[in-house]
Amino acid sequence: MTERVSYRVGLANILALALDVDGVLTDGGVWWGPDGAEWKRFCFADIMAVSLGRRAGLTFALISGEDSPLVDRFAKKMHIQHVVKGCRDKAGALREFATETGIELRQVCFMGDDVNDLPAMQIAGFAAAPANSSKEVVDFADLVTKNDGGNGAVRELVDALLGSRGLSALEAFTKS
Amino acid sequence: MTERVSYRVGLANILALALDVDGVLTDGGVWWGPDGAEWKRFCFADIMAVSLGRRAGLTFALISGEDSPLVDRFAKKMHIQHVVKGCRDKAGALREFATETGIELRQVCFMGDDVNDLPAMQIAGFAAAPANSSKEVVDFADLVTKNDGGNGAVRELVDALLGSRGLSALEAFTKS
Amino acid sequence: MTERVSYRVGLANILALALDVDGVLTDGGVWWGPDGAEWKRFCFADIMAVSLGRRAGLTFALISGEDSPLVDRFAKKMHIQHVVKGCRDKAGALREFATETGIELRQVCFMGDDVNDLPAMQIAGFAAAPANSSKEVVDFADLVTKNDGGNGAVRELVDALLGSRGLSALEAFTKS
Amino acid sequence: MTERVSYRVGLANILALALDVDGVLTDGGVWWGPDGAEWKRFCFADIMAVSLGRRAGLTFALISGEDSPLVDRFAKKMHIQHVVKGCRDKAGALREFATETGIELRQVCFMGDDVNDLPAMQIAGFAAAPANSSKEVVDFADLVTKNDGGNGAVRELVDALLGSRGLSALEAFTKS
Repeated sequence: MTERVSYRVGLANILALALDVDGVLTDGGVWWGPDGAEWKRFCFADIMAVSLGRRAGLTFALISGEDSPLVDRFAKKMHIQHVVKGCRDKAGALREFATETGIELRQVCFMGDDVNDLPAMQIAGFAAAPANSSKEVVDFADLVTKNDGGNGAVRELVDALLGSRGLSALEAFTKS
Repeated sequence: MTERVSYRVGLANILALALDVDGVLTDGGVWWGPDGAEWKRFCFADIMAVSLGRRAGLTFALISGEDSPLVDRFAKKMHIQHVVKGCRDKAGALREFATETGIELRQVCFMGDDVNDLPAMQIAGFAAAPANSSKEVVDFADLVTKNDGGNGAVRELVDALLGSRGLSALEAFTKS
Repeated sequence: MTERVSYRVGLANILALALDVDGVLTDGGVWWGPDGAEWKRFCFADIMAVSLGRRAGLTFALISGEDSPLVDRFAKKMHIQHVVKGCRDKAGALREFATETGIELRQVCFMGDDVNDLPAMQIAGFAAAPANSSKEVVDFADLVTKNDGGNGAVRELVDALLGSRGLSALEAFTKS
Repeated sequence: MTERVSYRVGLANILALALDVDGVLTDGGVWWGPDGAEWKRFCFADIMAVSLGRRAGLTFALISGEDSPLVDRFAKKMHIQHVVKGCRDKAGALREFATETGIELRQVCFMGDDVNDLPAMQIAGFAAAPANSSKEVVDFADLVTKNDGGNGAVRELVDALLGSRGLSALEAFTKS
């Protein structure tokens, strides 16, 4: 039984969004090719999500269990400064992020899709999960998106966050 | 609230089709691999759509927010002369296209899938969107296809355009 | 209006299977990467289909509108000797295949997914199409599979062909 | 008609999991690119499945009909020691695995998706299949997962195996 450690708060209180990468910003797939090459698939709806969220004042972090250079590449493209790779302790990484940014854990939303994300989801103020997450994660999350990971799940979460501030994606877009 | 700037016209009046690329001619996904490599997925139903539309006399344009060489490659393969990449002002690009070609904006259909496409959709005579577009775009579009982007959305639009002229895809094909 | 030129025959009369490639043996997608690279996706259910069909005595042909080396690669892997690429006249190519093999057109099944396949489908004894084919092709086909192209459509057709001979896929497999 | 050779046992008796690769750990697709390059898509839900299963004491094996270096790569990443590639006799390979490990065949679950997997499924104590397996395999399997191959089918099987021991995926994860 997974129990929440922190307060659960409404989306309107969230100031930061910490994201697992595989299964959240990707479809959970990994393409392998010759010579050890590895590909992952991101999508523009989620890329736009990060862009819209930042315009609305959200701080973003990536906390990934994998140690892939593609995480850095996504962070660089989207100007995300807080990146943890090869992470075995996501709750610890999330605490560190909170300390570094001065944002309280209860003001942070963590989006994850598998059991190794649960410790971070437990201490975050709000826990979100893509539709195709593992059973335990779906059961625990405060918000399960209709979209799957890598196919607009992050966008749907950001749209909900914007909505909690009375903003539409279009308004966030035209604010810039 | 998104408002239409131009007249809304029926498909039979459309002479040109201006397309966003990511999410319209692709599924919105982007595959990243080693050394900064980037892949996108197009599909033959949409490739055939451009071919059929041109045979029926339509002029095509690509107006993309991304600055990818794959946009040029698609344009070259399909003999599309009007291409704008890395576009931050799609309405402006669409106006320029109209000026250059002498086709009135009300005779142009714009197909887009996200909020950055809305300004162009607002000034076009007809606005179309793939099924999996963002909420605001779906709400605004005159036609939302049943097919998703990169999976026949453009083909479905072209089939409707041909139908408005009393032509089937087969007739357009055999005209050549 | 598409009309059948040849007799329509039952599947039990079919001795050869001529396949379009993109949209039939693939999902119709094409991945583009750096330096003009192009990828396509095949699937093992369809690879097994060709293997099972050949064990049951069927002759296979690939007739593709595209001029891709991946067509040759598939043919080589599956020991398919009759291959036409960059084909603008699929009906002509099918007639030539019939002449070369001595198999009558009415003993040939053609599987295609788009309007450029219709002329070949019209002269074949049996016309099949994947579920996600273009409207005209779906309307014309004698058999529309439940599976999409590149995801078992060819396998479903071969299973039906085997069934018409009273063979299951397992029996065809264990015959070898 | 496929008949079971070994006893059928409940999941709680299973000590080892032997997996076909294409269509089970992948979606059955194969991407082909220039110069003979070949890619396959694995997913992190299934990668986590192997990790969770091993923590719960399961022994894993890969028995693949294809002779691809990607099978070795997956085995290496997941510390799977028993790997057979290019296998034409999966039942024989499974017997050998049982002999080598001292695990009885009736304590082994085999997961496969096509007719060439049936002989191994027949002699295993438990036969599992992804949702999108071929008809004969679906008909024969003791458990058909809701998930497709390469998209959580193996994870669903491992979750069921853990459940048969009264363990959740979260408990298996936190045991390590």
